[in-house]
Parts: sequence; C-alpha cells; structure tokens
Amino acid sequence: MASLIRDRSAATAQMIAVFGDEALVRAALRFEAALARALADEGAAPSAAAELIAEVAAGAAFDIAVLADEAAHAGTLAIPLVARLRTLVAARDEASAALVHQGATSQDLADTALMLQAQAGAALIGEAGGALSAALAALAEREATTSMLGRTLLQPALPITLGLKAANWLLGVDAALRRFEREARDALVAQLGGAAGTLAGLPLGVVARVAEELGLGVPPLPWHARRDGIAGLATALAILAGATGKIARDVSLMAQGELGEAMEPAIAGRGGSSAMAHKRNPTGCQVALSAAIRAPGLASTILPGLPQEHERGLGGWQVEAATLASLFELTHGALTAMATVIKGLELHPDRLAGNLAAAGVGDDVGQAAQLVRQALAQARRAR
Amino acid sequence: MASLIRDRSAATAQMIAVFGDEALVRAALRFEAALARALADEGAAPSAAAELIAEVAAGAAFDIAVLADEAAHAGTLAIPLVARLRTLVAARDEASAALVHQGATSQDLADTALMLQAQAGAALIGEAGGALSAALAALAEREATTSMLGRTLLQPALPITLGLKAANWLLGVDAALRRFEREARDALVAQLGGAAGTLAGLPLGVVARVAEELGLGVPPLPWHARRDGIAGLATALAILAGATGKIARDVSLMAQGELGEAMEPAIAGRGGSSAMAHKRNPTGCQVALSAAIRAPGLASTILPGLPQEHERGLGGWQVEAATLASLFELTHGALTAMATVIKGLELHPDRLAGNLAAAGVGDDVGQAAQLVRQALAQARRAR
Amino acid sequence: MASLIRDRSAATAQMIAVFGDEALVRAALRFEAALARALADEGAAPSAAAELIAEVAAGAAFDIAVLADEAAHAGTLAIPLVARLRTLVAARDEASAALVHQGATSQDLADTALMLQAQAGAALIGEAGGALSAALAALAEREATTSMLGRTLLQPALPITLGLKAANWLLGVDAALRRFEREARDALVAQLGGAAGTLAGLPLGVVARVAEELGLGVPPLPWHARRDGIAGLATALAILAGATGKIARDVSLMAQGELGEAMEPAIAGRGGSSAMAHKRNPTGCQVALSAAIRAPGLASTILPGLPQEHERGLGGWQVEAATLASLFELTHGALTAMATVIKGLELHPDRLAGNLAAAGVGDDVGQAAQLVRQALAQARRAR
Amino acid sequence: MASLIRDRSAATAQMIAVFGDEALVRAALRFEAALARALADEGAAPSAAAELIAEVAAGAAFDIAVLADEAAHAGTLAIPLVARLRTLVAARDEASAALVHQGATSQDLADTALMLQAQAGAALIGEAGGALSAALAALAEREATTSMLGRTLLQPALPITLGLKAANWLLGVDAALRRFEREARDALVAQLGGAAGTLAGLPLGVVARVAEELGLGVPPLPWHARRDGIAGLATALAILAGATGKIARDVSLMAQGELGEAMEPAIAGRGGSSAMAHKRNPTGCQVALSAAIRAPGLASTILPGLPQEHERGLGGWQVEAATLASLFELTHGALTAMATVIKGLELHPDRLAGNLAAAGVGDDVGQAAQLVRQALAQARRAR
Repeated sequence: MASLIRDRSAATAQMIAVFGDEALVRAALRFEAALARALADEGAAPSAAAELIAEVAAGAAFDIAVLADEAAHAGTLAIPLVARLRTLVAARDEASAALVHQGATSQDLADTALMLQAQAGAALIGEAGGALSAALAALAEREATTSMLGRTLLQPALPITLGLKAANWLLGVDAALRRFEREARDALVAQLGGAAGTLAGLPLGVVARVAEELGLGVPPLPWHARRDGIAGLATALAILAGATGKIARDVSLMAQGELGEAMEPAIAGRGGSSAMAHKRNPTGCQVALSAAIRAPGLASTILPGLPQEHERGLGGWQVEAATLASLFELTHGALTAMATVIKGLELHPDRLAGNLAAAGVGDDVGQAAQLVRQALAQARRAR
Repeated sequence: MASLIRDRSAATAQMIAVFGDEALVRAALRFEAALARALADEGAAPSAAAELIAEVAAGAAFDIAVLADEAAHAGTLAIPLVARLRTLVAARDEASAALVHQGATSQDLADTALMLQAQAGAALIGEAGGALSAALAALAEREATTSMLGRTLLQPALPITLGLKAANWLLGVDAALRRFEREARDALVAQLGGAAGTLAGLPLGVVARVAEELGLGVPPLPWHARRDGIAGLATALAILAGATGKIARDVSLMAQGELGEAMEPAIAGRGGSSAMAHKRNPTGCQVALSAAIRAPGLASTILPGLPQEHERGLGGWQVEAATLASLFELTHGALTAMATVIKGLELHPDRLAGNLAAAGVGDDVGQAAQLVRQALAQARRAR
Repeated sequence: MASLIRDRSAATAQMIAVFGDEALVRAALRFEAALARALADEGAAPSAAAELIAEVAAGAAFDIAVLADEAAHAGTLAIPLVARLRTLVAARDEASAALVHQGATSQDLADTALMLQAQAGAALIGEAGGALSAALAALAEREATTSMLGRTLLQPALPITLGLKAANWLLGVDAALRRFEREARDALVAQLGGAAGTLAGLPLGVVARVAEELGLGVPPLPWHARRDGIAGLATALAILAGATGKIARDVSLMAQGELGEAMEPAIAGRGGSSAMAHKRNPTGCQVALSAAIRAPGLASTILPGLPQEHERGLGGWQVEAATLASLFELTHGALTAMATVIKGLELHPDRLAGNLAAAGVGDDVGQAAQLVRQALAQARRAR
Repeated sequence: MASLIRDRSAATAQMIAVFGDEALVRAALRFEAALARALADEGAAPSAAAELIAEVAAGAAFDIAVLADEAAHAGTLAIPLVARLRTLVAARDEASAALVHQGATSQDLADTALMLQAQAGAALIGEAGGALSAALAALAEREATTSMLGRTLLQPALPITLGLKAANWLLGVDAALRRFEREARDALVAQLGGAAGTLAGLPLGVVARVAEELGLGVPPLPWHARRDGIAGLATALAILAGATGKIARDVSLMAQGELGEAMEPAIAGRGGSSAMAHKRNPTGCQVALSAAIRAPGLASTILPGLPQEHERGLGGWQVEAATLASLFELTHGALTAMATVIKGLELHPDRLAGNLAAAGVGDDVGQAAQLVRQALAQARRAR
C-alpha cells in the first residue's frame, strides 16, 4: 500500500495528494468545523463556541505517523482526532471543547471526509476526462476518412477508417464520464446520523446545514449501512478505467513493430529500456492497461460492503476508503496518460495504408465516414 | 454451469427460461427476421424474400444439443444457425436464402440476441423489484415508530425503530432499481455493423429499422468493441443484488435464536433440515445472500471485456453472455425471495422490545419517525 | 447459467456431463449407499438394510426438473432426494427406510457429492493437462534453436528461440498442474459430520469407511465450515486456466496477419466467419482466453466462503458448487483446446526469420538453447 | 494507496515497512550488488569493480520523492535507480560504472526486489501465523469438552464444544499456513534473464550465484512472463486471510450482546466509540474481516497477469507488486490481530451454557471431544 514509488508508477501526484493523509485530516477537520457551525445555526450550540472550533480546526496540524498509530489502536480515526481537537479547543475555552463532534459518530466523520476527498477527486477526473475526450474528438474528425485495416479476433477483417476507431474510443469514454458524473451527483452527500443513524440529540436540520457548508448533497437518510452510492462511484470509475484501457489496448497493438501504424509521442526520458537503447515502450498505454486490469478487482472489493450488518457493519465499509482511493488514483492516472498519448499520437500513414493493402480485403470502408460524423454530432449533443 | 438443480437453488424458473437455449435461438431468429425486413424496407432486398425469411424464422425449431455442438465447433452460434435457416428458406425459395444474414456478422446476431434476452430479463427485474419495494415501503410505514435496538459493528448501539431500518432497506433497493433502469435504457440497443462495424454493404438506415422492429434502442455506432453498456448493466445488477442481500443479512441476524426478533414466513416444506426437525432455516435470505456473494465476482468478469482488441476482441466479449445471464438470474432470484420474506415477515414484538430493554441504552429513538416519513416521501417522489 | 449453447462454447461435453444433474444425483445416491454400508460395517445398522438401500440407490432415477423445483423450494437437494429414496426403499422394506441418511445432514450429502464430481473432473483435467504438457515438451525440443524475435511490452526486444518460448509455456502449465494435483489430493475428502459436525449418533469410524468406499480421503474433522480445500482447488484451477491462457495469448498474437508466424491448425468448419470467407479465427485461443478471463472472478467468488458463520454458513458455501463446476469446465475446455492447437500448430519459418531480421536486433539468442535443455530436463524430473 | 492512516488501520507497521520505499530501494540495490559480484565470480567482471559497486550500493541513499517522480516518468524504477548508482560508482571509478546492471533488464531488478521483500514478508507471516496457531491449539485443548450451542445457517442446531470450534479454526489456519509456506518455497526465486530472457551477454552460472547471494531459489528459466509463482503466493495469502477471517466471523457473532459468549480482550483505548461510552467494539475482528473481504479482489487482480504478452507483458505484471504488497500487509494485520484476540479471549461460561440450554436441543455433543483430540494430534504431526 504504502510505497510512493509504486503508487506514482500508476497515479498522478495530484490525485495521490487528494487521497493522502494531509487531505484526509484536513477533510475530517472541515467536517468538525461544519458540524459545530451547523449546531450553532440550529440553535443547539453557542455561535462563539462554533466559531472557535472552526478556527482551531482550520489551524490544527497533527503528526501523521502518531495519529496513524493511535487510529489503528483505537480502531477508528475519529477517536484520536477528536480527542486532539478537543484538547486544542479546551486550551482556548474549556466549555467549547465539549461541543466538538457533538452528536456525531466516528463514521459520520469518516464518510464525510471520504466524500470531500471524492469531491476533489471527481473534479480532477472531470478535467482529465475532458482533455482526453477533446483529443479523441479532434482525432476522430481529422482522420474520419483515413483508411486502415479493421481487425476482429486479432485477425484481418475489412477496411475501416481511423476516425471510426477514434469515434468508438470517444463514445466509450464519454459514456463512462457521463455515468461517473451521474453517480458522483448521487453519491457525494454528507454523512451525519449519530451513533445509530437516528440523529439522536441532533436537530433534524443540522444535516442539510453541514452538507451546504461542505458543498455536498443532502442524503434522504443517514447512509451508514446503505452503500449503493459508494458502489455506484466505484463501478463507474472501473468502467471509465476500462474505456480508457480500450484505447491503450488498440494503440499498443498498432504500435507493434510489425504493424507500426502508430506510436506514443516521443517524450525525452519516457519509455526507454534499461537494457535496450533502441526501445520506445508504450509507457502511457502501460499505465492505462494496468489501471484497467486493477479496476475490476477493486470494484469487486467494494460490492461485498453492500450487504453489511445492521446499522453499521463490521469489516465491509471499512475497506471502502482505501479501495475507492485506489480507483480514483488509477483512473486519473489512466486518463492523464492517455490524454497525452492521444494528443501527441504519432501516426504512420504509409503503414496504415500498407497493412490494409497487404491484407487484400479491398478498400470499401462502408459507411465509416458518415458514422463518424453521426457519432461526433451525438457526442456534442450529449455534452 | 449446466446443472438445473444447482441453478434453481438460486434462480427462478422464469428467469432461467429467459436466458435458456430456446429463448436464445428464438431471439437469434427474431434478429434475422428483423434484418431481412429492414433490408426490404430500405429497398435493399425484395419484400417477398424478407417476409419468407421472417415466416420461416418464426417457425424454425432446431435440436439444441446438435446446434450447441456445431456452434462450439465453429466458434460462434451464427454459423450453424444461419446455415440451417438458409437451408429452410432455400427449401421454399432458393433465391431468398442468399438474403439471410445479409451484411451482418456473427456478433450482430450474438449481441442483439443477448439484448433481447436482457430486455425480457429487465422486465422481470422491474416486476420483482417493484414487489419488494412496495413490501418494504409498507413495512417502513407500519413500523415507523416500533422501537428496537440499533446495532453497530455487531454490538448494541442505541435505539432505532424498525421502520427506520426498513426505510433504509427501501432507499437502497429503490436507488439500485433506478440505476438499473437507467443502465437498461442506455444498454438495450440493437447491434448491427457488419464484419468490421462499418455497415459495409448495408444501407445506413437499416440499424434504426432493426432496432425499432425489436423494440431496442438505436446505438450511435456499432458497439462490437465498445462494451460500457454491458458493463453498466452488469454492475447495476450487482449493486441491486447487494442491496437486496443487505435486507437478507439483517433479517437473518434478527432471526438468530438469541435475538428472535423476526423470522421468515413459515412456508410448508421450505427451510427444513434433513437432520433436525426443529429447524426453520432462513432459506429466502440464503438465496439473496448467495446472490450478493456471487455478484461481485461476476461483475468483475464483465469489466475486463472493456479494453478489448480492435474492432472485435478475442476472449473478452465472449464471456459476457453467460456472465450477464447469471447476474440476471441471481438478482431476480434474490429479489423474488426477499419480496416473499418481507411480505410475510414474522415479527416478534416482545423480543424487539426485550432486546432493547436488556441492552440498557435507554429508549430515545431520536428523529427516527420523522426520518422514516421523510424517506417515504422521497421514495414516492423518486418513483 | 442454463444455456447449453453458451456452455459448450467454452467447455467440453465430457466435463459438462461430470457436473450435470444426472452425475449430481448419481453422486448423491452413491453417498447414501456408502453411508448405509458404513453404518452396517460399524454395526450401527443391519447389513441387509444397508444392501437394500445401496441396491435401491443404484437403480433410482428421478425426474430432474421436478427434483430441481423441490430442492429449490426446500432450500437443499437432500430433503427431496432423501424423501424419494426413503419412499423407494420403504416400498421394498418399511424398516430399512428409516436408515436412509441416518445421522447425516444435508451438507454431508452436498459436499460429498461435489467431491465425487470433482474427483471425476480432476481425472479429466489430468488427462487434458498431460496431453497439453506433452505437446509443449515436443514443441520446445523440436524448436529449441529456431530463432525468432523476442518481444517485451509489445515492442521488439532481442532474439529468442521458439523453443524457449515453448519451454516457458511448458513450465507454466506443469507447475500449475502439480499445484492442482496437490490441492486435489488435500481437498478430495469425504464430508460426514451430522447436523453440527460432531458425529452425534454416528460411530467415529463411519467417516473413514464412507471415504474408502467412495475413493475419497478422510478429513481430520468434518469441514462444513472450513473451506480451505475448496478454495485451494478453485485457485489452482484458476492458475491453470491462466497458464493455459498465456499460450493462447502468444499464439493469437503470433497469428496476427502482420506477424504471420503461427496459425492454429486448419480444422474443417472451425474458426470461420459468418461474414468473411477469408477468415481463419483463432478459435482455440478464444476458448482458452475466455477461460482465463472468467477464472479470476470465479476464484474470487469462492474465497468469501472462507469466513463463514459458525458450524455452517448462510450463503457462502452455497455458492461454491456452481462456481467450482464452472472452473472445472472452463479449465478443461481451455486445456483441451490448446492441446489441439499446440499439437497441430502451423508454423511459418519464413515469417519467424523475416520478422526477426526486420527488427534489426541482431541474431544473438544468448543461452536460449541451453536454457531449453535445462528446462526440459527439469520438467522430466518434476513429473 | 498512499494514506498511512488508512493503511495502518489494516496492517502492522512492521509489514508496511517491509513493503515501503526504503525497503524497495534497498532490495533493488542488493540486487545490483549481487549481480556485480556474481559477474565477477563467473569471471565476467573484475572483482574490484564488483566490490566497489557492492560497497557503493550498500551506502547509497536517494530522495524517495524525486526517485518516484523519475521512475514514473521513465516507466520503470530501474532506469533512474541504475543511473544514480552508476553516477555514484563513476565518482569513485569511471570504468566500474559501466558494469552496473550489466546484462540485466528492468524487470530483473523489479522482480528480484519484490521477491526480497516477499522473503521478509514471509518470515513475518510465519511468525504471526505460528502465534495464532499456538493460541488456537491451546484454546482447543483447554475447551475440548466445554459445551455450547452449534449453529447452522445462523439458526440453533445441536450442541458442540468450544474446543471443536477452535479445532476447526486451527485446522483451517494451519492448512493455509502450510500452503503459503509451500508456495513461498516455490515462488521466492531470483529473476535474471536480460532483455528477452535469454541471458544474452551473461554467463549461465550467474543466475545461481545471484540467487545464492540473496538467499533466493534458482528458477529453471527466467520467469518474466511466467507468473504462476506470484499467483500461487497471492492466492495462498488470500486463503490464509480467509481462514483468519473465519475466526473473526465467529468471535464477532459470539460477542453480540444477545449471545455474550465471548469478547475480545479488553485493551485500554481499543474498540471504543466516539459516540457511545458503553461500547466495546470487536476491533481485532474488524481488522481480520476487512482483510478477508479485500483479499479475494486482490487475488483476482494478480490472476489476469498470467496470460500476458510474449516475453514480458504490457500492464499485467506491472500490477503485481502493489497488489502482492497489499495481500502481505492485510494478511499480517489479520493474523496479528487475531493472535491477540485468541490469546486473550474473554469467555463467558454462563452464557455458553445458558444459550445452549435455552435452545432446547439437549446436551449430546456426539464425538466432539474425541474429534478435538484427533485434530490436535493431526495438527502436531503436520507441523
């Protein structure tokens, strides 16, 4: 889990930061601040105390290694984090300290913090996905009529156009992006229910206030044991990683020496070999394919959390955060790598034409050009 | 794969029939009929030939065991099925036989047939899901204020109401049903692209006509190698199975002898033991939990089909049909079993009250009743 | 689940029969016969009754569809099957009927029957694996010094020999076969423990007698809730499917038109296209790759059965039989398909040499020939 | 991936260190030192150069964050690490620098480094597994005749003894440990083959020398594209995690308030609730169950690496290191947590007896005590 070298081979520094410890602690403290303010707004706590808590939370900084040990010992991050925040607040005003985390439960903090991280992650996914989508649309348009060999079951089939191939990549990525956005809209909601999800000791209105303060949605009920939102996010990311991996699969096959139809852009220091000076490895495709290979197992790790026990399960939901983080990281790594690949894709028109001619399957590309136009129009409408 | 006894332990006879051999052959023949008619409507084939093909297809019946052997040998169902259909048509009119399957490829038949089976399957899922949802809404409403012990991490927590538990079950199932319906709307489209997906030799309008004839949607492009629709369906079914399994998890835990809060309805001959006369096993819950346990692995089997090779992959998409069929079968089995369980759920009010009292955690159920009303209102709006 | 056409595309008729309904019922009846005889041998039942039960069991035949419905309703096969067997026995001798299934529980029958099916399945796996292994060893020996281009990350690397590639395939399959045999030796044990696994009402010696009668091993304890044997079998099959898929991956890549180094053997009616007369699809590779794609998800479906509840779980172990059957079927299909492919592999020496020359990476194959000899010697020793 | 707080909730600090960046770089440098020495021993390099490389490698320290960025850019750790090592060596002796990494390829370094980390990991697994096994054997022996209620399908069944339950836990863990040791013996081998696995430019004897220097086994052939060893390790760890999770499942169910038969040992600051002072959560069980839930998806992520492309795949093997690390970390976390739980398990004899009496299923524990003795004897023999 904890090797930066191995993580960075698959993920961007940006997304690793979004799901890193600093961001987690920051998100947890934002939850506590929002809760205090919401209680004050509902008249359940003095405003001054709420502002003090928010101020202390904004400035608090903890030793991550110590906090990690304490959280592991306690069985939950909330216990040491809330204890430390209370101590800091108490140092300023003893009475206000009791209001920290009031009415909340550990999972309120854990889930809301994860959703805040997912919110930041979703923004990065949207940007990288948009960049890839734009590059694919440009490619499809530019190469709408460029003939090449279509291949099925890894055998020569009939002529297609490169634009048609790119249009299919585009539709796959766009559909996966729309699914992800839809799932994010549903899933990115605040969690606040208290110990058994009944809002015992909390005014009903406090949930909406916390959600608003944090820019998250308001759930119809606390969702401690109702995890379909998380599962929807996870599977949407896995499908997006797969749709991105599809492009990598095709590009890497086209880049085989004997085909030589396309190459990843040459980037100084990237894709070399420690043993062979002549090599230019499809490193961007490698990142995307690795993501597509890991995503199914990760998605299948989130799903067993659905049938969890009673009002908060034992074991199931605790696996979600690390797994969801991996899905965000891998998918963003894949999107980013392939956006670079597609933007700078090096095409070899002679090999595209030569391989088609050598296959001896004629040159009738059917309705390919018309299909590309149709697909691009639909892609524009759907955006 | 092929044990009816083992299949029926997890699935309904109805859904097994939807994905059985007879239905598969019927769907494949409907595709061929629709294609012939669409070609005629587009002026690419004589109407009489199309009507003859449609008529022969409607009446054709093949020996399934022989067809299965032939399809396995050929590597695809289309080859023997089309050959047989051509022979039957040729016996009536030699010239019309050449029009059978004209312009289509094996995967056009395979994918469209699967989508027709999925269409029938989706209708059954909708019915069973609706029945479960209605039973849950009724339970939540009826028991909105019935106090019971809330439990977290399998330990006593604070009081909740049974209605709140049921409202959470309801929201989970409803959200999963809506996701499934959305994915089905996107995914249930016809497949028609010809050998390399360019509609070579086919009029552009033929796709929409085939789709309309079959009640399927029109894809923006042939999707031989773009499988996000299938992946979306599969993951939506897996999430629905998980949301249903959640209910089974809770009911089976409440049915433990020491808790005794609820039991599956007594049904003659169901849930007995071959060794212990006194037992009443939670057989409905077993069906739903088994489905929830199998669904993640099945969903993760569909996802590697996304990054498939070129215009039609080798190995990846060929695993989808059997896997998707299993997901439909298991999910329908789970929904049906739990609809029966919830409709007839045997509650033991004394134990609900007694266990709460014994836990010594007071009787404050917080905002539970209000939350139930809120959730039921939201559930009604979302429908 | 229940489509023979879809099953046969991936599995052999032989292995489908091993896990079919007839074989399941036969195995269950053999368990009942062995139990009756073991009880008699231990002095816990009259010999005449045991022989009568065994005789009736050997001749019994049931309507599978009816039995499947009844088993689904009851929640377990044992209940209707034992009831029917008792009725048949009672028709001959009322008193003997009470001895049927005496002391046993449903899972004793279910697990032992599954192990009898797995025993037959393991024999088929051994045969098909041996055939593939022999074909690979012959290929490695024959082509030990045939130069070809080695490829890494789908890019040209340095020269290798075809024999070295085949030797790696061989070592992979052989290691996986040895693991499978080892796991089968441990896992293929009888199940007999009675309702709670204590052998209540049963003499201690009855387990070993039942095991001996059925040719199964004797477990140290009843293993109703200890499923590592099943998990070991399942993962060993998945690894074997993957090692077989590795060969298919390479052969299908070498068979690409632009490489043209190898082709699956030409077999009349196999690998054709419903749309393109010129095509020869790598259908054997497709079978093996599909198996390798499905195996991980199936293996991951068995593993959640490990942490099951108490003396017999709810939901977890009930998924094993269908899943394990699929793993046997897919792996046997893959082994069988690739044995045929490798035995008849069509090599194109000019393309092997030409692609190497075109890559411009020299002709130094390093220690390849010596490595092949070394690997073959080791493979022989390990057998 | 990269959150220490989330990692530590599931893993021990020890195992996190084994798979951390420092250990990875140290292992990679040990590989380079061993390679240089092996070359010298085979007469392929001057001894002085080899000793210089080994000395510099032993003392080298790099900025991890920078190295991670460079490795991500290059597509492999070997490129920047070897470049840096060469620079350090060149500063001492220009001529020796050329000998660094001579004849090796990136994957030789990556795989051997991973195996060195796995070797250290396996030792920790052995220790923690041994501790859990010993605690289970002691529990089984001590409670061999303590009656309690056996439960099947989460319903009361017949009496068992606590010792019988513990003996089953013991056999499950022991069998999984033996499988893991066997797989580790086969898998923990050095990797050295050069660019295409032919040992081009390397003396044949160098592999055995590198292996010996590092305490790893000697592979029959380079295994760049033959990954059954890794798959065997991964699945063995997953089964071990599952067998450990089984204990956690049972303990957490016995710890339910209404059963009250057992509790995790009370440890100050562990298992508390941020909302409820009265709670004592089964935190050790949570760790083990989370591991058992994550293990199947992780194992299923390793398996698709088996059918990888040619002499070194694209995407498949690159996912193994992070995934295998997670399996080691989670399994060690689970074993360690449950060893503590079992050693200090708090039993409530009155509830064990009371729940059994309340079930009204008599007090016949069958052959339980005899079965426990038999199982303990077998466990001792197998060790």
